[in-house]
Amino acid sequence: MSSKHLDVLVVGAGVIGLSAAYHIKEANPNLSVLVIDRRSSPAQGDTAKSMAGVRDTFTSEVNRLLARSSIDFYKHVQAELGFNLNLELVGYLWLLTESEFREFESIKPMMEQERVRLRILEREDLARLLPDLTLDPSSQQSELVGLESIHKAIHGLDCGTIAPDLVAKYFENQYRKLGGEFQFGVEAKALRLVAKNSLDLPGEPFLWQDKRIAGVETNQGPILADTTVFAGGARTPMLFDPMGIDCYIKPKKRQVFQFRSNNLDRLLNSKGFNEQNTIPFTILPKGTCIKPVKGERGFWITASDDIGRAFSFEEEPIAEEAYFTMNIYPILSEYFPCFTNLRPTNSWAGLYDINSLDATPIIEKINSCILTTGMSGSGIMKADAVGRITAALLNDQDKAVLYGGQSISTSRLGLTNRNVGREQLVL
Amino acid sequence: MSSKHLDVLVVGAGVIGLSAAYHIKEANPNLSVLVIDRRSSPAQGDTAKSMAGVRDTFTSEVNRLLARSSIDFYKHVQAELGFNLNLELVGYLWLLTESEFREFESIKPMMEQERVRLRILEREDLARLLPDLTLDPSSQQSELVGLESIHKAIHGLDCGTIAPDLVAKYFENQYRKLGGEFQFGVEAKALRLVAKNSLDLPGEPFLWQDKRIAGVETNQGPILADTTVFAGGARTPMLFDPMGIDCYIKPKKRQVFQFRSNNLDRLLNSKGFNEQNTIPFTILPKGTCIKPVKGERGFWITASDDIGRAFSFEEEPIAEEAYFTMNIYPILSEYFPCFTNLRPTNSWAGLYDINSLDATPIIEKINSCILTTGMSGSGIMKADAVGRITAALLNDQDKAVLYGGQSISTSRLGLTNRNVGREQLVL
Repeated sequence: MSSKHLDVLVVGAGVIGLSAAYHIKEANPNLSVLVIDRRSSPAQGDTAKSMAGVRDTFTSEVNRLLARSSIDFYKHVQAELGFNLNLELVGYLWLLTESEFREFESIKPMMEQERVRLRILEREDLARLLPDLTLDPSSQQSELVGLESIHKAIHGLDCGTIAPDLVAKYFENQYRKLGGEFQFGVEAKALRLVAKNSLDLPGEPFLWQDKRIAGVETNQGPILADTTVFAGGARTPMLFDPMGIDCYIKPKKRQVFQFRSNNLDRLLNSKGFNEQNTIPFTILPKGTCIKPVKGERGFWITASDDIGRAFSFEEEPIAEEAYFTMNIYPILSEYFPCFTNLRPTNSWAGLYDINSLDATPIIEKINSCILTTGMSGSGIMKADAVGRITAALLNDQDKAVLYGGQSISTSRLGLTNRNVGREQLVL
Repeated sequence: MSSKHLDVLVVGAGVIGLSAAYHIKEANPNLSVLVIDRRSSPAQGDTAKSMAGVRDTFTSEVNRLLARSSIDFYKHVQAELGFNLNLELVGYLWLLTESEFREFESIKPMMEQERVRLRILEREDLARLLPDLTLDPSSQQSELVGLESIHKAIHGLDCGTIAPDLVAKYFENQYRKLGGEFQFGVEAKALRLVAKNSLDLPGEPFLWQDKRIAGVETNQGPILADTTVFAGGARTPMLFDPMGIDCYIKPKKRQVFQFRSNNLDRLLNSKGFNEQNTIPFTILPKGTCIKPVKGERGFWITASDDIGRAFSFEEEPIAEEAYFTMNIYPILSEYFPCFTNLRPTNSWAGLYDINSLDATPIIEKINSCILTTGMSGSGIMKADAVGRITAALLNDQDKAVLYGGQSISTSRLGLTNRNVGREQLVL
C-alpha cells in the first residue's frame, strides 16, 4: 500500500464514488486522487445490482433537479459524446387502483407545473395497449391477496432505463484519462481519527484534543488523505457509527428476479408507449416493479418495501426464492398471466442506502470528510449531479453548477442546513 | 406467561415506561395495562445510571415545555403530596471560556425572553464563591490539554438535581394503586408483526397483506396487546430495525464516576449559590460535568461526548478507568485541584438513546405501536410530560394537557409532522 499522503481519498468505486472522483479530478487536475474499493474492479457492488430506472417523477424539487440534470448529462454522453449508456426513454407506467389514483391526483398538479410530463391512460387505453394485462383480477387467489381493479394508469414520459455498468464505465474512463488512480481489493475498515496536536500517547485522540479524520484504516494498512470522500452506500453506518456520527442511513436489501420466456414476447414488444416498442418500466399495485430489458429478451422484477422487511447489513446479500414466490408472484401472475408458472432465470440482491428522513441524498462535510450517501435507491439516475455537488463542496464552493447550467447550494443536501422536501414518490 | 390479550403493553419499566403506564392507566382505568422489563424490578436500567440533573435551560421551546412542566410536577409531588424525590434546585453553573461565552451570548436573549432565569457571574464573583476553582490554569499539563482561562460563568437558577429511583418509585406506586400490573424478567426480543387477515400460511405476513404490530415476542413467549408502547430507550433500534422502521435513535455510552473525600468538603459546601449551600451542577470547558451529592458527601462526574465516541449497544455497559484518567482527570484536576490524586470510589455506565435529529424526544404512533424514545440524556427531567403525551396519543387525542395546564399537540413530537427546534444546549 502506498504510504504517500493523498489530497483526496474516495472510498467506494460504485457509481457515486466514480462520479465524485471524476468531478473532483476534473475541477482540480493537480490534486492527487485515489479511489479504493474492496472488490477487484469498479461498480461491482450495489451499483451492479441496481434496477437502474431513470425518472423525473419526483415530488421533491431537489430530487427532480438532481435526476433531470443527470439524465440530461447521460443523454449528452450518449448522443453527443458517442458513449453508449443503453439509455432508453421507454417511460414509467404506474398501474393504479382507484384509491392509489386519488392519492396520485393530489401531487399531479404540482408535478405538471414543474414540467414533469405525464399522461393519464384510461382502462380502455390499457386494454388496447396491454392485452396481457388483467384489469380486473377475479380469481380466488386475487381475492385472497386483496387485488383490486386497475382504475387508471399514469405514464411518465421522460423516464426510462439505463445500464449502470456503462454509466460507471464512463465516469471511470474520464477519471482515468485525467490521471486519477485506483486501488482494488482494499477494504475501508474504519475512519482514522487523529489528534491535531498529537502528544504521541496511547489512546489518543482524547476528549480534550482537537480531532481530524485523517483517512481510513484498511485491510492493507492506513491510507492518509487531506480529505476523505465516503461514497460507500449502505456501508456508511459501519464506518460512521464508531465515530459517533449519525449518518441517518439504514441498509435495506432489494432483490431482482430475471425472466426470459417466449410467453413474455408480446408484453416485451408492446407498441404505442415509446419508439422502442416496449412496455415502460411498470409499477403494479402493492409494490411490484417490472423492467423490460429488450437486449436480454426478458424482464427484471423487483418489489418495493413495506413494514416488516428488516434494515440489516449483509456482506453478500442474496435473492430468496421464497421472497419471489410468496410476495411477488401472486400479484405479478394475476395482473400479467403471461408470467404464470414461469420461474426466474436468474436473481440477485443489493442494498439500498435508505435515508428515511426524506429519501433524498445526503452530501455533507463533517470534519475533513465528505459524506456522500443516502441515495435511497435512485443513485444511478442522480450520480452525475451528486458527483458535481461533492466536488463543489470539496472546493468550499457555496454553489455547484449542474449539467445544463442550473446551480444548487452545496449546503442544501447537507445535514446542518438541510433544505429538501420529503420525497413522496419512492420506489 | 399470561396468555390473555392485553389492551396496552408497555415495554420497559424505566422512568419513561413507568410514567407512560401511570398516565395511560389514570386516563383509562378500565384498560388492562401490563409493564414488562427484562430486569427483576423497575428502573434498574439506564434510569438508575442517570446523572439526573434537571434544568429549564433548553433552547428549544418544546424541550423547555417538557422539562418545566415535569419539574413543576416533581415540585408538586414533593411539596404538596409529601413524596420525597430528593429534588434540590441547586442550579446549573456553566464555567465558560471567552469563546464559549460568546457562543452562549447568541442564545441568551431568547432564553431570557422565555423566562429562563440566568445570571452571569464575573471572574471576581467566581474567585469569591469558589476558592477551589483555578480560573487561569497555567501548569504544563494545562497547556498540553489546551485549557483556557474561565472568562465568565452562567448560573441557571431554576435547575438542580433529583433522585431518579424516587421519581420512578412515585410513578410505579401510582400505577400499582390504579391496578396496573408488572412482569419482570421478561425481555422483549422482537415486535410481533401479524397479517390482519391471516391465511395461516408459513412466512406470513407477506408484502401484500395488511399488517399489525400485535405485541412482542419475549424470552417467555409472545405477549399480545391492542397497543404496544415501546419505552425501551437505547434498545429501540434492536426492535425497530428488524421491522424496517427507522426510529432515528443511536445508543451511546455515558460513564459516571463517584468521588468522596475530605478534600472535597469545601467545594461541596460552597455558599452563595443556593439555599442548600452547595456548588451547582457544574459544567467545565471541554465537556466535564460535576454533580454535587450532599447526601453522599461527594460528587458524581461525567463528560459529554465528542466525535470518536462510538454509537454502540452493550447489554451491560461498564465505566472504564482509563476513560476517567485520560479524558476527564486532566481537565478536572486543573480547574479543581482539590480532585488531584483522588480516585473514583465507584463508577457505572448507562446508555443514552440519542436522537441526533434534534435531541428532543420522539413520541410517534406507528401502526398499533407507540414509540416513546430519543430522550437523549434528559429523560428523567421530562418523564412526566412525555408520559402524558404518550397517554394522549394512545387515546387519539390531538392535544395533551401537561402538568400546570399548558397543552401541546400530540403530533409535535411525532416523526410525520415533527415540529420541534433543534436543541442547541445538549449535555
